[in-house]
Amino acid sequence: MSGLGTIDELPPDYRQALSASNVLPLWPSLRAALPYDKPARRARPVAWRYRDLRPALLRAGELTPIEKAERRVLVLSNPGLGPDAMRAAPAIFIGLQLILPGEFAPNHRHSPSAVRFVIEGKGGYTVVQGEKLPMEKGDLILTPSGLWHQHGHEGKEPVIWLDALDLPTINTLEASYCVEGEPQAIRNEPDASQTRFRRAGLLPYQALETAPARYPLLRYPWREVREALHSLSGVTPTGKAVQLAYVNPETGAECMPILGFSALMLRPGETVAPPRRSTSAVLHVVEGEGEAEIDGETLAWSESDTIAVPTHADVRLANRNPRKPTYLFQVDDAPLQKKLGFYEVLN
Amino acid sequence: MSGLGTIDELPPDYRQALSASNVLPLWPSLRAALPYDKPARRARPVAWRYRDLRPALLRAGELTPIEKAERRVLVLSNPGLGPDAMRAAPAIFIGLQLILPGEFAPNHRHSPSAVRFVIEGKGGYTVVQGEKLPMEKGDLILTPSGLWHQHGHEGKEPVIWLDALDLPTINTLEASYCVEGEPQAIRNEPDASQTRFRRAGLLPYQALETAPARYPLLRYPWREVREALHSLSGVTPTGKAVQLAYVNPETGAECMPILGFSALMLRPGETVAPPRRSTSAVLHVVEGEGEAEIDGETLAWSESDTIAVPTHADVRLANRNPRKPTYLFQVDDAPLQKKLGFYEVLN
Amino acid sequence: MSGLGTIDELPPDYRQALSASNVLPLWPSLRAALPYDKPARRARPVAWRYRDLRPALLRAGELTPIEKAERRVLVLSNPGLGPDAMRAAPAIFIGLQLILPGEFAPNHRHSPSAVRFVIEGKGGYTVVQGEKLPMEKGDLILTPSGLWHQHGHEGKEPVIWLDALDLPTINTLEASYCVEGEPQAIRNEPDASQTRFRRAGLLPYQALETAPARYPLLRYPWREVREALHSLSGVTPTGKAVQLAYVNPETGAECMPILGFSALMLRPGETVAPPRRSTSAVLHVVEGEGEAEIDGETLAWSESDTIAVPTHADVRLANRNPRKPTYLFQVDDAPLQKKLGFYEVLN
Amino acid sequence: MSGLGTIDELPPDYRQALSASNVLPLWPSLRAALPYDKPARRARPVAWRYRDLRPALLRAGELTPIEKAERRVLVLSNPGLGPDAMRAAPAIFIGLQLILPGEFAPNHRHSPSAVRFVIEGKGGYTVVQGEKLPMEKGDLILTPSGLWHQHGHEGKEPVIWLDALDLPTINTLEASYCVEGEPQAIRNEPDASQTRFRRAGLLPYQALETAPARYPLLRYPWREVREALHSLSGVTPTGKAVQLAYVNPETGAECMPILGFSALMLRPGETVAPPRRSTSAVLHVVEGEGEAEIDGETLAWSESDTIAVPTHADVRLANRNPRKPTYLFQVDDAPLQKKLGFYEVLN
Repeated sequence: MSGLGTIDELPPDYRQALSASNVLPLWPSLRAALPYDKPARRARPVAWRYRDLRPALLRAGELTPIEKAERRVLVLSNPGLGPDAMRAAPAIFIGLQLILPGEFAPNHRHSPSAVRFVIEGKGGYTVVQGEKLPMEKGDLILTPSGLWHQHGHEGKEPVIWLDALDLPTINTLEASYCVEGEPQAIRNEPDASQTRFRRAGLLPYQALETAPARYPLLRYPWREVREALHSLSGVTPTGKAVQLAYVNPETGAECMPILGFSALMLRPGETVAPPRRSTSAVLHVVEGEGEAEIDGETLAWSESDTIAVPTHADVRLANRNPRKPTYLFQVDDAPLQKKLGFYEVLN
Repeated sequence: MSGLGTIDELPPDYRQALSASNVLPLWPSLRAALPYDKPARRARPVAWRYRDLRPALLRAGELTPIEKAERRVLVLSNPGLGPDAMRAAPAIFIGLQLILPGEFAPNHRHSPSAVRFVIEGKGGYTVVQGEKLPMEKGDLILTPSGLWHQHGHEGKEPVIWLDALDLPTINTLEASYCVEGEPQAIRNEPDASQTRFRRAGLLPYQALETAPARYPLLRYPWREVREALHSLSGVTPTGKAVQLAYVNPETGAECMPILGFSALMLRPGETVAPPRRSTSAVLHVVEGEGEAEIDGETLAWSESDTIAVPTHADVRLANRNPRKPTYLFQVDDAPLQKKLGFYEVLN
Repeated sequence: MSGLGTIDELPPDYRQALSASNVLPLWPSLRAALPYDKPARRARPVAWRYRDLRPALLRAGELTPIEKAERRVLVLSNPGLGPDAMRAAPAIFIGLQLILPGEFAPNHRHSPSAVRFVIEGKGGYTVVQGEKLPMEKGDLILTPSGLWHQHGHEGKEPVIWLDALDLPTINTLEASYCVEGEPQAIRNEPDASQTRFRRAGLLPYQALETAPARYPLLRYPWREVREALHSLSGVTPTGKAVQLAYVNPETGAECMPILGFSALMLRPGETVAPPRRSTSAVLHVVEGEGEAEIDGETLAWSESDTIAVPTHADVRLANRNPRKPTYLFQVDDAPLQKKLGFYEVLN
Repeated sequence: MSGLGTIDELPPDYRQALSASNVLPLWPSLRAALPYDKPARRARPVAWRYRDLRPALLRAGELTPIEKAERRVLVLSNPGLGPDAMRAAPAIFIGLQLILPGEFAPNHRHSPSAVRFVIEGKGGYTVVQGEKLPMEKGDLILTPSGLWHQHGHEGKEPVIWLDALDLPTINTLEASYCVEGEPQAIRNEPDASQTRFRRAGLLPYQALETAPARYPLLRYPWREVREALHSLSGVTPTGKAVQLAYVNPETGAECMPILGFSALMLRPGETVAPPRRSTSAVLHVVEGEGEAEIDGETLAWSESDTIAVPTHADVRLANRNPRKPTYLFQVDDAPLQKKLGFYEVLN
C-alpha cells in the first residue's frame, strides 16, 4: 500500500479555501480514521489501586463541602484518551463517589444512565421512582436514563460506591442533560422489586398482561449474585469463566441500554482467557486478588481495585490465591455494540 | 334481529346439489358459528375429585399392564364438549398418569407439547435431551414439542402426575404425531438447568452471546415456586391474586408455546376475583381447600382436585381455611390466544 | 409394537365408573390421537369448480332474501372432515359470498379475522374503520379481528368474493363472537392506505415514531400484485415458485394473525413442487388453468376454482398452458403453526 | 444553584496526586458534562454550498491522483465541533466524493456503515456482496458494516456522491477498521433486489421461511422515492411534512443500524415545522430551493447544498418557490438514539 498524500502536499491557497468552506480533505486522515484490520486504540490497559484512591476521596470530603461538589466523585481517567478525559474506557465513565453520614443528593434525573456498585460502608440508600433501595457492599443499583432518583446516607461511616455511566456516548452525541425535581414521595414498600422477582423462570403473572417494564428490577443484591455464582460454578468446566449477566427479568435483555454488567468468579488458582471481543470493559475487584494480562501487559489487583480493558484486547485473568475464589464486577459496552451492529467476538 | 332462514326452507333439490358440490349454506348455521356478544360455550365448569380418580387410576394399573397401555393415563373429559372429548377445556388436554415402580416410558418426541405436574410419589424422573430431571410433588417438568424425552421410576410407590398438553389444538389442525427414538445418553449433570438459572435478573453470560434458547429451563421445582409465592405475597394487596407465571428466563415469555402455566396462592380466608378473560383454564389444587364460583356455579375443592373453567367466565376463588394458605396450579390457553391476536381481558 | 388395549377389554363396571367421573382411558385412543411419524389426516384433497358453485350461489340469491341470509355464503366443506364441517382445510374457512346491487352488510366486528378476495363483479366496497376500500377482481381486503367493517355494492351486476376466515380455530377455542355497531362515518380519503404505502423499503416517516400499526394496509390491489409477480419472475429460476406473501409493511410479518396469504405465478408450461410442509392450504385460481397433484391424486383446475391441500402433503402444481402464465391465490395456516411452534418444512 | 468548586480551588499537591493516580475531580466539570435542562451543544447550524464545494472537489481530482487519495473525499466539518472535526453533526460523517471516469475503488469492508447518495454524473456503480448496483442522481446505495463492496465508474463525466457514515460513533468507541479483499465475483443479476422488492406489503414468500435479512434491499432509486413522495403528498395535510423513511422491507426497521435516512418533499410555497427532537441531522437538497430556520438562524439553500442541524434544535423548513416542490434527503441519528434509549420528541 503506497503512502497517501499528506495535508502539507496540498497548495496553501487550496487548504485555505477548504478551511473557509468548512471542509477537510479525507485522504491525509483516512488511515487514522479507518486503519487496516484492527482499530487504532488510544485507550490503554490501566489499573487504579483503591489504596491510592480511597485516601484521595476522603480528602476530597474534607476539602470540598457537598454544596460545592454536588457529587463528590473522582473520575477514572484513562491516560491514553487524552488529558482530562472523563473516560476509563472509550464508552465507559467510572467514578468513585463518597457520601458522608447525613449527606443527601436531591431528586433529579438525567439522559445518561447510571449504575451504582457499592464498595464500602453501610447506611447508604437510593430512591428510584419512589422505591427506597438499601445499598450494601457489592449491591448493584440502577438509576436509568430518565428515571427520578435521589441518594442519602443514614449510617455512621463514609459510604463509597462506584458509579458507571454511559456519559461518554451521550455526551459525544450532545444529548446529555439533567433535570432537578421535587423530593420523591417514598412508597411504603422499600426494596419491593426484590420480593417480586425472586427466582429465574418465575414472573408475577401480571407482567404477562402488560408490555414488559423497562426497569422492573432496580437492585441486584451482591449476596444473591454471589450465591448464584457458586451454583453456576457447579456446572461450569474449569478454565471457562463462571460469569453471570445482570438482566431485565421480564425480557432477559441486558438491564441497561448502553452498558452491560456482569459478575465473574475465578475459582481458587484458576486462569480464564475470554475470547477477544470488539468491546472495551472495566473490571472492579469485589473480593480476592490476582492478575490481569492485557495485550501482554500484566496488572496485579486486589480488593476494590479497578482495571481498564481496551477494545479488541487479548485478556487473561488469573486468581493467584490457591484457596479462595475471587469475584470481579465487569462493565462493558457490549449492549451498545450489539444494538448498533458492530459487536464482534474475535479470537 | 329477524330469524335467519333454516336449512329446511331450502328446496330439496337445491340442498342435494349443494351437498354434491361439497358446500354448505352458511346462513342456517351463522348464528351458531358467530353468536352475538359472547361465544357460544359448550365447555362446562367441572370439578374432578382426586378421591374418585386415584382409585380408578390404580385399578388401571392392575387391569392393564404397561405394555398394553404404553401410557397409563385417565383423560379428564369435559362433558359439555361431547362424549369421548379428550379435552378438559376447549384447548387443554389434562390426563392423570400412573407410573409404577420400575416402569419406563421409552424415548420419544411429538409435535404436541406436554408438561408434567407431579401429584404424588417419589422416585419418578424424566430425561429431556439428555438432562435427567427428578420429579417431586408440585414440580413442573417441560417436555416441549420436538424435544426427545423418556420417563422412568426408581422409587417404591406409585407415582402419579398430571399431564397438560396442547393436543386439542394440534390435533384439530391435523398436525399431531409422534416419533420413537433410541434411548438417550444421559449427561452426568442431572438437573443442571436448576443450577444455571437461579435468581431472577441473573443469566449465564453466554446466554447473551447467542440466540435465546427456546427451553433453557426444564424443571420448575415446587419448593422454589412456593417460596417465591410467599415473597410475592408480601407486596400484593389483600384480594389481589398472588400469582406467578412460569416463564423462559432468557426471554421472560411463557415457558411453552400454546398453553400457559402459573401458580396461585390464596392467603388464609382470602377470596380473589380475577378479571373475566377470553381464555379457558384448568385449576389443580396443590395444597389446601376452598371453593370456586364459576358463572354462578359453586364447586368445592380439596387437595389434588382439578377444575375446568370455560372461556369468558366469571370466576371467584375462595380459600375457606382461615389459618392456612392454599395453592393452585393453573393451566390456561392465554399464550395461544395472545399470539393469535384474540386474547381479551373483559370487564 | 404390540397392539394397545381396547376399550372393550375393560370391565363394564370400570368403564361405567370412569364415565361417571368424566374421565376416559387414554390408551385405546392413544394411537389415533398421536400416530407414528405423520399426522392422521382426515382432510382430503378436493377441488371445487366455479362452474358448479356460481349457479348455486346465484340461486341462493333468488331463494333467500338478504334479510333471511344476513350473509349469502356457500361454505366449502371438506368431505373428509365430516358432514357439515365448515372447513375447507383443518384451520381454514372458505366461503363464496354473493352480494347483489344495492345490498348492504351493516357495520359489525368479530373475534375471527376475515379476508375477502374478489372473484367477479364491479362496484363492491368494504369500509374498515372509516376507510372505504374499492373491490376489484383479485383484490385482497382485510377485515381483521376486532376491527369495525361494513360492506356495500354500488354497481349493477352480482359481486362474488371469496371469504377466508380463521373461524375453525376461534370456534374450537370457544372464542368466536360478533358485535354489531352504528354505521361508520366514512373518511374523505378513500383507499388512503394505498397512497401511504407504495414502494417496498419506504414507509411514512411517522411510522417510525410510533409502535407499528397492526393493520396499516387494508387493501392489496391485484393489479399491483400481478405486476410484482412479473418483476419477481425475472430473478426466480425456472421450476422455483414465483410467490409473493401479503405482509404488514410496517413489520414485514404476515398481514393477518392466524392465516397466511400469498400469490403464486406459474410461468407458461412450468411445474413447481414446493417442499412438503406441516401446514394445510387452499388454492384459488385467479387466472389460467392447470393441474395439482396432491399425495398422488390429480385435480384439474381452471379460472375461479378452489382446491384444498391437506397438512404434510406432497404437492406438484403444473401450468398446462404453454403460452400464458397462471396465477393462484393461496391461503395457509403457516402463521398459526409458526407462532405456536410446530411449523415444519419436511424433506 | 450556588457555583460548584473549581479545579483551582484545590491544593496543588492534591491536584498532583490525583493526576498521578489517573483520576479527575468531577465537580469542576460536572455542569459541563451534565448541564441543566438541555444539552450543551457545540455543533452549530451550518450550510455548505455546492457551488463552493464542487470546484474544490474537482481541483482535488487534479491535485491528487487516486493512488494518493484512495478516496477523493472532502469531509464536511462542523466548525463548532473543533478544528479538524470529521463530523457534520455530532454522530454524522458527511463527505463529498469524486470519482473520475475509469477510476475504481477496490473491494473492501469496514466496521462503520456507509451510504452513498448520488449528487451528479452517470456511469458510477457499486458492487455489494456480488450485486452490481447502478448509481443515478438521488439514488441511495447501502454499504453496511461488514459487507464487501467496491466502486467503479464506466461513464464519461465526473461522478460526485455524498457519503454518510456513522464513523464518529464507531471511532469514538475505538472500533473502526477496514479490511481489503479480493475483487468480487459479480453475479449476473445486476440490481436484483430491485425486482424482488417492489411494492409495500408484498415480500418474496421465502422471506417468511427464514430469519429476516439484515440488508435485503441495497439500492433505493430516487425515481421511485420521488413518485412515492407524490403519492404520500395526496394524503398529507398542508403544513405536515411529506416524509418517507428508508427501511428494511423485511422488518420495517430503519435500513441501517445507527443513522436514519429519509426523503422530504416541501410542496410549492409550503413551510413545515417538525417537532423538536433530541437527534442531530444533516439535510441535503436534491431539487429546489428554500430556507431553513434553525434555532433562530436562517440559512438559504439551493440544489445540492447541505445543512447541519444540531440536537434539540427548533427547525422550520420553507420552500420559497411558489410553483415547484423541493426535495430534501435527510440523515439523522434517530436509530442510534432510539436503540440506546434516550431518543426524545420534545415540545
